[in-house]
Amino acid sequence: MSETVEETSGAAATADAVHEDGLNREVVERVLAAVEADDHDALVAILDALHPADIADLLEQVSRGERRALITLWGVQLDGAVLSELEEGVRDEIVAELPDHVLAQAVQELETDDVVYLAEDMDEPQQERILRFLDDIDRAAVEQSLKYDDYSAGRLMQREVVVAPEHWSVGNAIDFLRNEEWLPESFYDLIVVSPQMHPIGTISLGRLMGSARKTRLKELMAEDFRSFRVDQSQEDVAYAFNKYHLISAPVVDGDGRLAGVITIDDAMEALEEETEEDLRLLAGVGDEELSDGVVEIARGRFLWLAVNLLTAIMAAAIIGIFSDTIELHVALAALSPIVASMGGNAGTQTLTVAVRALATRKLTASNMARVIGREGVVGLLNGIGFAALMGVLSALYFSDQTIGLVIALAITGNMVVAGLSGVLIPVGLDRLGVDPALASGTFVTTMTDMFGFFAFLGLATLMLS
Amino acid sequence: MSETVEETSGAAATADAVHEDGLNREVVERVLAAVEADDHDALVAILDALHPADIADLLEQVSRGERRALITLWGVQLDGAVLSELEEGVRDEIVAELPDHVLAQAVQELETDDVVYLAEDMDEPQQERILRFLDDIDRAAVEQSLKYDDYSAGRLMQREVVVAPEHWSVGNAIDFLRNEEWLPESFYDLIVVSPQMHPIGTISLGRLMGSARKTRLKELMAEDFRSFRVDQSQEDVAYAFNKYHLISAPVVDGDGRLAGVITIDDAMEALEEETEEDLRLLAGVGDEELSDGVVEIARGRFLWLAVNLLTAIMAAAIIGIFSDTIELHVALAALSPIVASMGGNAGTQTLTVAVRALATRKLTASNMARVIGREGVVGLLNGIGFAALMGVLSALYFSDQTIGLVIALAITGNMVVAGLSGVLIPVGLDRLGVDPALASGTFVTTMTDMFGFFAFLGLATLMLS
Repeated sequence: MSETVEETSGAAATADAVHEDGLNREVVERVLAAVEADDHDALVAILDALHPADIADLLEQVSRGERRALITLWGVQLDGAVLSELEEGVRDEIVAELPDHVLAQAVQELETDDVVYLAEDMDEPQQERILRFLDDIDRAAVEQSLKYDDYSAGRLMQREVVVAPEHWSVGNAIDFLRNEEWLPESFYDLIVVSPQMHPIGTISLGRLMGSARKTRLKELMAEDFRSFRVDQSQEDVAYAFNKYHLISAPVVDGDGRLAGVITIDDAMEALEEETEEDLRLLAGVGDEELSDGVVEIARGRFLWLAVNLLTAIMAAAIIGIFSDTIELHVALAALSPIVASMGGNAGTQTLTVAVRALATRKLTASNMARVIGREGVVGLLNGIGFAALMGVLSALYFSDQTIGLVIALAITGNMVVAGLSGVLIPVGLDRLGVDPALASGTFVTTMTDMFGFFAFLGLATLMLS
Repeated sequence: MSETVEETSGAAATADAVHEDGLNREVVERVLAAVEADDHDALVAILDALHPADIADLLEQVSRGERRALITLWGVQLDGAVLSELEEGVRDEIVAELPDHVLAQAVQELETDDVVYLAEDMDEPQQERILRFLDDIDRAAVEQSLKYDDYSAGRLMQREVVVAPEHWSVGNAIDFLRNEEWLPESFYDLIVVSPQMHPIGTISLGRLMGSARKTRLKELMAEDFRSFRVDQSQEDVAYAFNKYHLISAPVVDGDGRLAGVITIDDAMEALEEETEEDLRLLAGVGDEELSDGVVEIARGRFLWLAVNLLTAIMAAAIIGIFSDTIELHVALAALSPIVASMGGNAGTQTLTVAVRALATRKLTASNMARVIGREGVVGLLNGIGFAALMGVLSALYFSDQTIGLVIALAITGNMVVAGLSGVLIPVGLDRLGVDPALASGTFVTTMTDMFGFFAFLGLATLMLS
């Protein structure tokens, strides 16, 4: 861990400081030793030097018993920010065990959007317990945010926004900012609003600072900024931030009034979440976390494996149809998985590219036909290549030209099927409004397994006699 | 596309404006119609309203002939920023075809870090051609950046930094910024430096603006900021930005002197690149792009398929060993792919989780033993579940209890092998300094195929007689 980033304090601390920061095995061991020795002061001293995200990692990586002992020893000094950095499973476990006065103190330290992040995945009673500790204004803000859909722009935005009317000058804005007691932690643009609170322009702080006091905001502001509606998906938000290199963007309600602002750090997290989700869906893993228990994880993976079992049985049934042929030519039993496997892998390649191209919106109506045709041709080209290879190998090994021809034809056909189904299946799911990463993998390998076995064993039945 | 983001200009434009912006099929068709009609003014009018990233998408999505006609018709009005948004293949094609005077104008419009991004993947002669159009100062800056390793912090950073000495007041800093003719486009923190140009603190613009003119920078600056060395990997940078919620961070050279600054938008792109790379490596796809040609793509995927063929042949060889048993019990030919397939899928699930846990540094020395043990137990639990299911089904279907027992034992064993190899293989590769996503997939499915066939057919040979 600690090699990655250095925390520089003072000019002298550079390369040498690299290993002193972050979470590494030595830090974990020192923490556990302090817990073991029941040494409160030593524990607080070590934890104070760590970033809340590192403390969260530490809590996730130790055992449940160690975690409980650590939290108990830490007591009221517990840093609220750690809670919002934790994985859901560990966080719920800790929150459930924290005494009320410790939890109250931790929650009151947080900004409202962190409280939302903390509360959104909790069940009702636990959510209630958290919200109880907030003052009325904060609680109302949190409850309002929780009303927006999960994974929506409304849920992602922060409600604290710095706005200015268009008739102000740069000097007015700076004086206003100086007199404001509280400014949001992440704040990069001043949003210029109409009297009806419609956003009409944005000014980056850099631009504001670089301009003379008397300049009118109206002259400075960019009018071609991008904004989001509260009900847009976080996927849309992440996509736009990444594509258009946004830093912050206003969020408007149904009437076009400013409701909040999304900043790039939130968008970055959303982007990571969305890409990670694709990767997990393609492999058939849900949103399990590394700290989850054995039973929870086994259960989460069971469904996908059950679907796979079903498709494997279907493939086995196809092999079963040809058992007479296999009895005559037992070599077919060894060769047929090769045909299926080549198709499955080629299909997965195409599928992965297609799923990402859909997610990054590179695959659209404009190039759809070209991409589908291309995948078919790529399958054909590689199919011919591997068909030639396996055809010759099989013909030589079994001293039987026909078996070489059969496997060559089956591989070629299956790789074309792989290329076409690898793109048509995710595109079809996408049209139906289903996440194309979700079930594509099963569909594609089912196609290639079944076609592969059927083509190979069917051709063998016809041609070997 | 266009549903995702609205470009609001003026208070009235809100929900209704949603469809007017970005790239959609209608925009693409209008562009192609203008190209068809050879109507320069119409083309420029449409393109001027589009973001460079959208124009880049458009160029990638049309056919090569349409692209060439469009670029020719666009002529010297070509927006340089479009070049730095393009996929490598299309960009190289366009750059190669552009007349010198158009390319010169396009390149001179760009900031130096965009020129670096444009030039870094080019081959020597094309790189030379681009650099020729820059003035001496810019060229030196670009050449210096290109000296840092690919995917390093030095390559990622921008060299334009806004710094202030620690003895300055807020007023000094603001006056300095106002008098500076040129400020970097993305700039969120003022970096406070020592006389030796070592970074000693950072101040966010928001904090600077909210403070009285006479406040000393020294009092305002955060000293516990994070910085990177020029030779750190972009993977480290992306990880730290995401984990610690950074917005910008100084980059220092070997002597600890400020060399540049990395901003979150660059880190966001790096993060996306790294996650995308994992996903592609797991599926055995290289860095192909949607606009690449058929032959290029087929060639890129061939190697992985060849590795897969090799492992499929190894699995076939194991089946071949048991051909006598299969000849006696032809049902085994249909059942054995089920055993292999369940292991392969369970292994892929574990592998995906392990690869991501390594990439996000959640899987460390502290929890390694626990995670490995857990994966073994998860494999055992699901193994027993599916073994019971398939055991009973097979025993009933073939009216043979022994065949049920054989498949049950083989599935249980193979799923434990899947769980263990799914985590041990990527961890082992990581220890060896190889990207754990790269070859893990083949290793794991080779393990589960070979073990699955061997255990199932071996047990069958022993127990069925």
